[in-house]
This record gives sequence, structure tokens and C-alpha cells, in this order.
Amino acid sequence: MSRGGRNEDRRGEILRAALEVISERGYRAASLAAVAERVGLTQQGLLHHFPTKEALLVGVLEARDQWDATPRETWRLDLLAALVDYNATRPAVVRTFSALLGESVTGDHPARAYFTGRYTVVRADMTAILRTAYGERLPSGLTPEQVAPLLVAVLDGLQYQWLLDPDAVDMTAAFRDFLALLGEEPPS
Amino acid sequence: MSRGGRNEDRRGEILRAALEVISERGYRAASLAAVAERVGLTQQGLLHHFPTKEALLVGVLEARDQWDATPRETWRLDLLAALVDYNATRPAVVRTFSALLGESVTGDHPARAYFTGRYTVVRADMTAILRTAYGERLPSGLTPEQVAPLLVAVLDGLQYQWLLDPDAVDMTAAFRDFLALLGEEPPS
Repeated sequence: MSRGGRNEDRRGEILRAALEVISERGYRAASLAAVAERVGLTQQGLLHHFPTKEALLVGVLEARDQWDATPRETWRLDLLAALVDYNATRPAVVRTFSALLGESVTGDHPARAYFTGRYTVVRADMTAILRTAYGERLPSGLTPEQVAPLLVAVLDGLQYQWLLDPDAVDMTAAFRDFLALLGEEPPS
Repeated sequence: MSRGGRNEDRRGEILRAALEVISERGYRAASLAAVAERVGLTQQGLLHHFPTKEALLVGVLEARDQWDATPRETWRLDLLAALVDYNATRPAVVRTFSALLGESVTGDHPARAYFTGRYTVVRADMTAILRTAYGERLPSGLTPEQVAPLLVAVLDGLQYQWLLDPDAVDMTAAFRDFLALLGEEPPS
């Protein structure tokens, strides 16, 4: 294997370890030393791959987006429900994301710009999905633009309730209830 | 003023300072020293009022619940909308709560039991409010039990989007859109 390939493998290992550490402690309280130890590197060795703790955070967030990557034009409401089903099988990833979202609203957090930008894009994507499904108005009379932030809020909010109490909150059933609340899609 | 009264005032000051520090840094990365400094106490002096950092966290969460306290029997959907309006005027409180909710899902967090218990109660309260407004079924055919976690998720999720980008997300208008999505309440 090429040196570049080995480097890529090692980066992947480090990102998975960082995800675990953040899911246990959050970002601010996570240490590079804990991540290095988990992959059998010295802190100096880790810094060769990610020169700062912030660079490692950006790496984790970008990796998450790659894992989730679905070509935008194929997104539909039923695929969103399938994504929620999938998330229910990987609590560590959901926990890391939810913890980082929570931290990102505190002062000068390095993930704040990432989340602000991400939500701008996600609201636009959800608006497009809703417009494809319903046209200019949903059965409730609301526009796709009005419903998009609610759809995003439900996805995020259900994750917290599910992580805290998985026996009490069935995230996948609840999300399908939300789709029912939006009303029947007109026949296409 | 009595010694007890002075103590209460001082506790209130400390809790407000702790709320500020948590809203800036989150809980895990917050230090008792930073809270003590903000109220002009030594760390020893602070420990006289709150013997551990965890006791201070519990104090902040309890104080938040007191600020929000409304007798349960008077809660209605339109009062929830008014609470969202009120929250939009106090971003520091919303930020602290949202940051703590995010942290609480990470391993062994001291606020986890608080949030798990709180959501159990809040979902039950929302179920009762929805039943009072709609009876056993909402216009969508969903039951109050099915809609309650969605209502809670929308409240939490909109707070994150609003804290990250207040110019893009009007939390109070969006929550009223969600109420419209639930459908007209039958005349009482």
C-alpha cells in the first residue's frame, strides 16, 4: 500500500477515535492525548495528521457529512424516514453530533460556523424536498419554506429525547407521525 | 436583612453567574474559579454556598424550572406560544439550557438524569394540553401521545436554529406555524 493510502487509513482511525472521545466527553473537554492513546500514537504523532484540536473537529464534522452523503436530487421524504431508521442503529454518531450541536451555541465555539452554514443548506434542501412532494402549499396551507425549519427541528429534537430515553421515545415511529401530520402528498 | 436573606441573595447572584459561565463555555469546561471571580468570591467562599460543581449545576437547573414555573392546570397551547415569545427575549437562558441538553447525552453527564426525568414530565404535560385542546384525536388522526414528543422536539430544535442564526430563523413565527400544522382546535 502506498504511503498516501496508509496515511488515509490512519486518518480514518483517528477520526473514529475522536468521534468516540467526543461522544463521551463533548469537544471542549476532549483531549488530544485521549484520542492519541486510543489509536496507539503519541500526541506528537497525532499532530502530524491533525495539527490542532480544531482541525480534528473539522475532520470529524466533514467525515460525518461524507457518511451521510446522498446525492441531493434523490432525496425524498420517505428517504428521510429511512435515514432516521439508519441513525437509530448508530447512537454514537448521533450522540457526537447532538453533543457538538449543543456546544456550538456557546461562546466562540469552533463548530459554530459549521453548524450555522450547515443549517442554512439543510433548510434549503428540505424546502426543495417539500416543494417536490407538495408543490407551493402543503395541505395545512403552509409553504415549504415555513415547514422546512420545523422538519429540521423535529429531526434534531427527537434525537435528544431518544438518546436520553430510548425506551420511551421511538424516534423512527415519531418521525413518521410527523410526516403524517404534514398530510397526504398529492398523487404525482 | 437576616443572615438567611443575605445568603439567599448571594445564592441567586452565584446562580446567575454560573448561568453566564455555562452559556459561554458549557458545563464540563466551566470552572468554579470563573464563577467565583464573577461574583467577587474566593473559590472557598463559593464552596460555602455550593459544595461541588455538580451542586451548582443542579442549582442552575432548578432555578431555571422555577423561572418557568406556571401552574400546570393553566397551561394551554397559546400560552406555550407566549413562552416561546418570552424565550426569544432571553437568549442567555436558552443558550445555557440548549448547551446543557447537548452535553447531557455524553457519557455519565451529571445533568443526564435531570433531563431524562424532565422530558418524561414534559411529554406527559404536553399530552394533557393536547388532550384538553383536541380530545382523543387531532385532525390528522394522531393521538395526543403521538404528537407530544413532536411538540417538544420542535420547541428544542427551533431553539438551536434560532441561537445559531437569529436573522434566518424566527422562532416565535415558526412555532405558530407548527400550531397551524396541528390543525384547528374544535370549538370548546
